[in-house]
Amino acid sequence: MKNKFAERARLVKSSETREILKVTERPEVISFAGGLPAPELFPVENLKIACNAVLDEEGAASLQYGTTEGYIPLREAISHRMKGIGINSTIENVLITSGSQQAIDLTGRLFINEGDTIICESPTYLAAINAFKSYDAKFVEVVMDDDGMVIEELEKKLNNHPDTKFIYTIPDFQNPTGRTLKLERRKRMIELANQYDVLIVEDNPYEAVRFAGEELPPVKHFDTENRVIYISTFSKIFTPGLRLGWICADESFIEKYVAFKQTADLHTDSLAQRITAKYMEIYDMEEHIKKIKAVYKTKCTDMMRSIEEFFPKNLSYSKPEGGLFIWVELPEGIDSAHIFTECLKNNVACVPGTPFFPNGTQKNTLRLNYSNMSNEKIIEG
Amino acid sequence: MKNKFAERARLVKSSETREILKVTERPEVISFAGGLPAPELFPVENLKIACNAVLDEEGAASLQYGTTEGYIPLREAISHRMKGIGINSTIENVLITSGSQQAIDLTGRLFINEGDTIICESPTYLAAINAFKSYDAKFVEVVMDDDGMVIEELEKKLNNHPDTKFIYTIPDFQNPTGRTLKLERRKRMIELANQYDVLIVEDNPYEAVRFAGEELPPVKHFDTENRVIYISTFSKIFTPGLRLGWICADESFIEKYVAFKQTADLHTDSLAQRITAKYMEIYDMEEHIKKIKAVYKTKCTDMMRSIEEFFPKNLSYSKPEGGLFIWVELPEGIDSAHIFTECLKNNVACVPGTPFFPNGTQKNTLRLNYSNMSNEKIIEG
Repeated sequence: MKNKFAERARLVKSSETREILKVTERPEVISFAGGLPAPELFPVENLKIACNAVLDEEGAASLQYGTTEGYIPLREAISHRMKGIGINSTIENVLITSGSQQAIDLTGRLFINEGDTIICESPTYLAAINAFKSYDAKFVEVVMDDDGMVIEELEKKLNNHPDTKFIYTIPDFQNPTGRTLKLERRKRMIELANQYDVLIVEDNPYEAVRFAGEELPPVKHFDTENRVIYISTFSKIFTPGLRLGWICADESFIEKYVAFKQTADLHTDSLAQRITAKYMEIYDMEEHIKKIKAVYKTKCTDMMRSIEEFFPKNLSYSKPEGGLFIWVELPEGIDSAHIFTECLKNNVACVPGTPFFPNGTQKNTLRLNYSNMSNEKIIEG
Repeated sequence: MKNKFAERARLVKSSETREILKVTERPEVISFAGGLPAPELFPVENLKIACNAVLDEEGAASLQYGTTEGYIPLREAISHRMKGIGINSTIENVLITSGSQQAIDLTGRLFINEGDTIICESPTYLAAINAFKSYDAKFVEVVMDDDGMVIEELEKKLNNHPDTKFIYTIPDFQNPTGRTLKLERRKRMIELANQYDVLIVEDNPYEAVRFAGEELPPVKHFDTENRVIYISTFSKIFTPGLRLGWICADESFIEKYVAFKQTADLHTDSLAQRITAKYMEIYDMEEHIKKIKAVYKTKCTDMMRSIEEFFPKNLSYSKPEGGLFIWVELPEGIDSAHIFTECLKNNVACVPGTPFFPNGTQKNTLRLNYSNMSNEKIIEG
């Protein structure tokens, strides 16, 4: 048989990081490698109550085909949540997706022509890199400091790349660095997007999980021309297994997203949508999120304290105010792949930072996750 | 703002049929328009028991991120089911997808280059047409008779279109016609695929729902060179709302599918997968399917009897041995869109056949669905 794959098949490969994660799944390993939320925080019992209520009250309707746009009460709950963080929206602006990964993928599908430029933080989220690369995008990376993307650098890149389709940003407790984009930079990013006529894709899965510092409005809050596409998820505030994310954007965009989602999977799991909506009806999601924040705060504190105590002094690391990750920069010349191998010999796992640079060969960085291990194990590790 | 959409955005639009379905959702309408399974057959109570067992026994693990390939016990159950219908496979050949629609879409993504030819039955499944069109495929239609795709015509088309990437076929109780590909044609289709070096995409969602006639092995049963990609779903035998489908294919294909699925949505809903696996562990799925067949048989019989009794004699219709649909061919010159409008005035809905022809303008056909209305309403309608 001759090779049958489409040309785009060469653009994807199974993520290296996922392969690493397989190695680190052995039970004796203390893993700071994954990005898994803490399972002890999943509200299993209350979710069960919500699920039984859905099946008792709505019966077969909760198991039938649904609309592509999503279950209306869930879209209403999300629209309400969006208002709470400073984004005006109606349900017409909200599309339910099968996890925020689908939102990212559909964004690539809807907007990226072969060779289009995407401007992103350096480093950035690996699965977004892979999704956008599968549409043959080019990446232009903008250097970060402790306050997120350096905005003067962003302006230079916009100037040098008139074929830019959108800026991809994770403003809050970014994956992988844990860094947050400061307020003035958010405003300035919108001004630049307007000036250079580019879109902004704001991927904000960790927004609700702030455990220190002052709350900041999302970039979309400052959006004056409906050019920000806001993406988020229930994975970090409820459970990731149900695969529920959403897009909040201008109606003219949502309409096209719906057409693509229809070809992609018709609609998102009806039962998962109704369980989540029912949970938010019966219980106070914001109270649940408070618990998550309290736990992550102690985990993050313990990890920072351990870094301070046990790590060599000639490295720097981010001090996140929320989210799941700390980013470690080692002295130049040190290869984090080597560190990974050495750590694993002692049954401790982390993720080398290299794959998070879309074009990159920067080898002296590590991502540490603190959400998925007990505090004792964090200190021991 | 300048237009930001990618060029491929012009290739998709929200399905016309879905728009029709919206019109027909008024409660007073007797609808033969949709393709919805009978909700009274969803095993709501047993599914609830399975769901509670999953949450009690597996707890947080059932709500955590999972692997892209899918939940192993579910892949095992599917692999077992595949063996039962004559397809040798291991779990390495099985990928869980978010409904069979995702399997269809990923197939387009993995195999179709711009302008590639797909050979399909004329007419064929609308959502597959839309998915493949979104990858800029060209369609070559092969005429059908009561025994499915006319195989001599298939050979001619293969001969005339050396750029054919795959044959897309729905061999059992096809959507929209309800027709079944006869045994000799299945064998011959494999021979031709081998001879012309093309793939076969066998979309077989209705396979298990045969209520009359003799069981036939799937096309993949005769596959000698691992060139058949078999796609199916739990939508017609369990519930569609959970969005669970699968691909059964050669490992070298599955590996690439996994990479694309990873960028598309990471993985399919963990809870839905575990509920379905648990249901199949506790209950006898084959017994449940027997109930579905018995009910659809009476619905189909009632509809055929009503067509015989009330319809004009100058039309022909298919006599399905399973599945959900009857196909009506009106005399030439009659526009089924007109019939649709007239029926709707009397609160009866059906789907005009035109959109099921990928290139087509054939206007004198109708699709009637009998699975989603009570027997009384079928006769009244």
